[in-house]
Amino acid sequence: MALEGRDLVSIFDFSDREIEAIFDLADEMDAHKHGCLKLADGALLSTLFYEPSTRTRLSFEAAMQRLGGGVISVADAGMTSVAKGETIADTVRIIESYADVIVIRHPLEGSARVAADFASVPVINAGDGAHEHPTQTLLDLYTIRREKGTMRDLNVALVGDLRYGRTVHSLAFGLARFGAKVTFVSPPGLEMPGYLLDRLAKEFGCTPAECHSLGDVVTDPESLKREGGRQKALATEVLSTFDAVYVTRVQKERFESEGAYQAAKRGYAITEELLSRARPDALVMHPLPRVDELDYGLDRDPRAVYFRQAAYGLPIRMALLAALLGRRSVTVKRSRKSDYRPEPRREVDFRKLAEVPCPNERCVTNQESYLRPQFTFVKHDPDLVACAYCEHEIPSPVAHGEAE
Amino acid sequence: MALEGRDLVSIFDFSDREIEAIFDLADEMDAHKHGCLKLADGALLSTLFYEPSTRTRLSFEAAMQRLGGGVISVADAGMTSVAKGETIADTVRIIESYADVIVIRHPLEGSARVAADFASVPVINAGDGAHEHPTQTLLDLYTIRREKGTMRDLNVALVGDLRYGRTVHSLAFGLARFGAKVTFVSPPGLEMPGYLLDRLAKEFGCTPAECHSLGDVVTDPESLKREGGRQKALATEVLSTFDAVYVTRVQKERFESEGAYQAAKRGYAITEELLSRARPDALVMHPLPRVDELDYGLDRDPRAVYFRQAAYGLPIRMALLAALLGRRSVTVKRSRKSDYRPEPRREVDFRKLAEVPCPNERCVTNQESYLRPQFTFVKHDPDLVACAYCEHEIPSPVAHGEAE
Amino acid sequence: MALEGRDLVSIFDFSDREIEAIFDLADEMDAHKHGCLKLADGALLSTLFYEPSTRTRLSFEAAMQRLGGGVISVADAGMTSVAKGETIADTVRIIESYADVIVIRHPLEGSARVAADFASVPVINAGDGAHEHPTQTLLDLYTIRREKGTMRDLNVALVGDLRYGRTVHSLAFGLARFGAKVTFVSPPGLEMPGYLLDRLAKEFGCTPAECHSLGDVVTDPESLKREGGRQKALATEVLSTFDAVYVTRVQKERFESEGAYQAAKRGYAITEELLSRARPDALVMHPLPRVDELDYGLDRDPRAVYFRQAAYGLPIRMALLAALLGRRSVTVKRSRKSDYRPEPRREVDFRKLAEVPCPNERCVTNQESYLRPQFTFVKHDPDLVACAYCEHEIPSPVAHGEAE
Repeated sequence: MALEGRDLVSIFDFSDREIEAIFDLADEMDAHKHGCLKLADGALLSTLFYEPSTRTRLSFEAAMQRLGGGVISVADAGMTSVAKGETIADTVRIIESYADVIVIRHPLEGSARVAADFASVPVINAGDGAHEHPTQTLLDLYTIRREKGTMRDLNVALVGDLRYGRTVHSLAFGLARFGAKVTFVSPPGLEMPGYLLDRLAKEFGCTPAECHSLGDVVTDPESLKREGGRQKALATEVLSTFDAVYVTRVQKERFESEGAYQAAKRGYAITEELLSRARPDALVMHPLPRVDELDYGLDRDPRAVYFRQAAYGLPIRMALLAALLGRRSVTVKRSRKSDYRPEPRREVDFRKLAEVPCPNERCVTNQESYLRPQFTFVKHDPDLVACAYCEHEIPSPVAHGEAE
Repeated sequence: MALEGRDLVSIFDFSDREIEAIFDLADEMDAHKHGCLKLADGALLSTLFYEPSTRTRLSFEAAMQRLGGGVISVADAGMTSVAKGETIADTVRIIESYADVIVIRHPLEGSARVAADFASVPVINAGDGAHEHPTQTLLDLYTIRREKGTMRDLNVALVGDLRYGRTVHSLAFGLARFGAKVTFVSPPGLEMPGYLLDRLAKEFGCTPAECHSLGDVVTDPESLKREGGRQKALATEVLSTFDAVYVTRVQKERFESEGAYQAAKRGYAITEELLSRARPDALVMHPLPRVDELDYGLDRDPRAVYFRQAAYGLPIRMALLAALLGRRSVTVKRSRKSDYRPEPRREVDFRKLAEVPCPNERCVTNQESYLRPQFTFVKHDPDLVACAYCEHEIPSPVAHGEAE
Repeated sequence: MALEGRDLVSIFDFSDREIEAIFDLADEMDAHKHGCLKLADGALLSTLFYEPSTRTRLSFEAAMQRLGGGVISVADAGMTSVAKGETIADTVRIIESYADVIVIRHPLEGSARVAADFASVPVINAGDGAHEHPTQTLLDLYTIRREKGTMRDLNVALVGDLRYGRTVHSLAFGLARFGAKVTFVSPPGLEMPGYLLDRLAKEFGCTPAECHSLGDVVTDPESLKREGGRQKALATEVLSTFDAVYVTRVQKERFESEGAYQAAKRGYAITEELLSRARPDALVMHPLPRVDELDYGLDRDPRAVYFRQAAYGLPIRMALLAALLGRRSVTVKRSRKSDYRPEPRREVDFRKLAEVPCPNERCVTNQESYLRPQFTFVKHDPDLVACAYCEHEIPSPVAHGEAE
């Protein structure tokens, strides 16, 4: 259960207790974030960014240096020979001889898994296309825990583009794992995809409410109690029920017209007027950068925690680096029954079938010729298998268990 | 009067005594420039360059590391997502949670002021378009003080493109503040703008001589004394009167023809032949890079101090970082009457007027939508107000004091 | 004979004993490659890459930090103002005031020599166009010494594009200097150039065998002994005679057709099948990145040392930096008679001749206007002189010695 030497490619690579151990360590790191610990003395981090992401890169590089370690940095490998001539597998097998931990960002889905498979040092996924960005998820969850003390039974709204938004998919699972109640608020056409709703329900028993606008009015069944014997339940704006509202970017290009965009925006963009109707202790969160879904006027409101949220990226990444490098032992508490724990991946053996390529054209297996497509059984649906790299799901060509 | 936590956006942000305190500290730093002080242990500098400037960036990054601190670096944010989707205000409020001091270079005028206004950590302007580049000015002034012992009463020529040259405008004010005598030498059409001459005269009592060529011959009134009773004064080439000649780049594109360029060049380009007619203890300075206004043959001449000048950037930036980070107390001497001290900006309150946008299209207020135009009274001319960000001056829509 | 303050522009700048001293130090550094020595405390390295080369840059930056030093980094100066407006001579004279050692990569041949001539701090050539890349040569030689204990009398095959391949030219001379037996294996048209064969023979007494395919069959004269009195010698595939096979990239564009490329590839590409016929203790080396001349299936074979080879770049560069910075004394053994030692360059004095430009258009002297063409006598051929920067050879316009 120790974290030394482990990779972090997906939020599902860590058990709930391991994540909480990282959070405990982050609490401790936070006290040292403007000093210089000697925890990572003599260790080197290599950032390996095939597309630029200034905030994420700087956050990791700051975290490593706050721990006392050094950094070798590739800010935009997409523009250099690394990307042109060399495979991910070869690149990480060279970088591992220079550095003790690798942070990779790459546009292909599943690329970070390839890096982790080939590198002998820990690999952290800093974003692999539309697939995963687990340290963003960790800092999102940590923000709620830090600001609210717990995630259990909190009402959390995920707002905006829930169809294409990468961070919000992982966050939904993270919240489900830690017992939050989730509501999805999205413009029509940008709802959370059905296969993810299915997985949330089947694997984590989480059935989020869904609506199209923060201003939607619902009938609050609990209001019956407050009204005594009267039969009429109170109507409540959904906004007023949330402990945390997590807003994400919505791209104008998703809409047919400027009018449709502006109409939808009224449902998810946070204005000062809208915020006045939220709970006095609600959190307004955002992964940043914002476009125009958060008014600048909000910035002074103590409920607007998005800059603190970004700042929590530092202690989270310090904790993660210290733990994966084995420079700091972390206390992983004994797991309760409800704990999520990663299971060994059960690979599908297509013995009787021709090789099936992954149908996701952004999958790393379709770009790096030395890789063979590989599929694993999907836990929540025996009729599906998922690409072992990008997790794209396809109908299973064999019955569950048949291949074993 | 302490410098800890202060920003440096403009050379006018510091009083004369504060600048001299930085110079005293730079003298001390110079002895350690090839060692590693422990002054900034555990501190992080973030460079944030929206356009590349290798020399300035490396100089800051070297200075921080010579002090024992670390660096997180954005060498060219203009090419990354930072520039695309995110405002300066948001970017610095995120970076401030990673780093203890921010050095920003940005093509928009006034951008560094915005960064300083929003960041809670010290911000140093490393060039905001054509507006300011104060650490260049500091190292220019420091070079004269180091090489000559003082700036007071020295004859300093500013040579080349005085109309568009950013560094030379700030330097003119710096020299005026420290009591140097200034001569402007520029090709026709590239003279120092009138509004700057006006400000030099009204605010600092400085009325520089002006000419079009270093070879211009003037009648030296002081020669009368040396010639005894004779009435005929000696003619002197202006070049031979200077203690320091500060040459700047001239862009060929400013001229109508190759012929006009070559003709003008004879007036400001320094050749070995020309230098033979300068004082034996004159300084030849240049902000570098040079184009062809300085012959390579000069490099061996002890008067050619431009590489030493560039090298002084290191102790100056070490001193500045140490002071702003509060890692080193600086002794700011008590101020004499003639000392320039920054005054609180008196903002113009256009109560009765519609909002006036800044007419400078390169001004940051015209690009970042959350900013409102803001103007301050101009000290030397009650009929003008200046943009609080880019300092562009416009006729005052209200009488001085009326708005108060 | 100390190495402190020395430059490394060409592998010929160091004597054989000096190279061996670097190797001895690298052995020692290897033990510390994942720790942090305090050898370079307070020292700064500046990388100055005018074209990107992620692997080389990261390797130097990791080496410097493993030694305890710091780094200021220019990952791609070709895209910044450094390249646009400023000469190499001016750039290094500024960087030398920030950093204690400079590592330069530049597309022009001879550029690193210019940097070394002008900088007062040590300069290491990390690749100057098609001219030299001496640290690659050092790590190649070191790999053989580490893996085999010695280079003397080993059979080493250099395979692939021997005509245009930069690394392989320097390696051939390095192997010759240390007494290896060399075989050149290249597709027709990509053979080692004649003037290099000439120099190998005349200066180092090295006359490599040449063939077109690793599958070529030769008659082994030594097999006569094993066969006793019988007259028939055994035929042997050349592949089975090698202690080390050094494979290099071949560009498809060099061939007339896809067919010609595929045919040639059979002669130099290493497959698992081919490797099965090599010696059980042979080394398969490659400078990386590979294209398709090394099957991924080889990676698990213990003879495939190319990733270890890349990893040796770290201790080699640590040793080099420590030695040139004077932070570690190296023991240069007394030289034997056969030792190569660099001699003072004897410049050709074209007293009676007009200035002759270097005919190599990629030579730095044809791009940087402050440089004058300069030629030196060629040791192995009195009828030739070589450009002092890019080493391009031309017929001598004067008799050897005449100019003196």
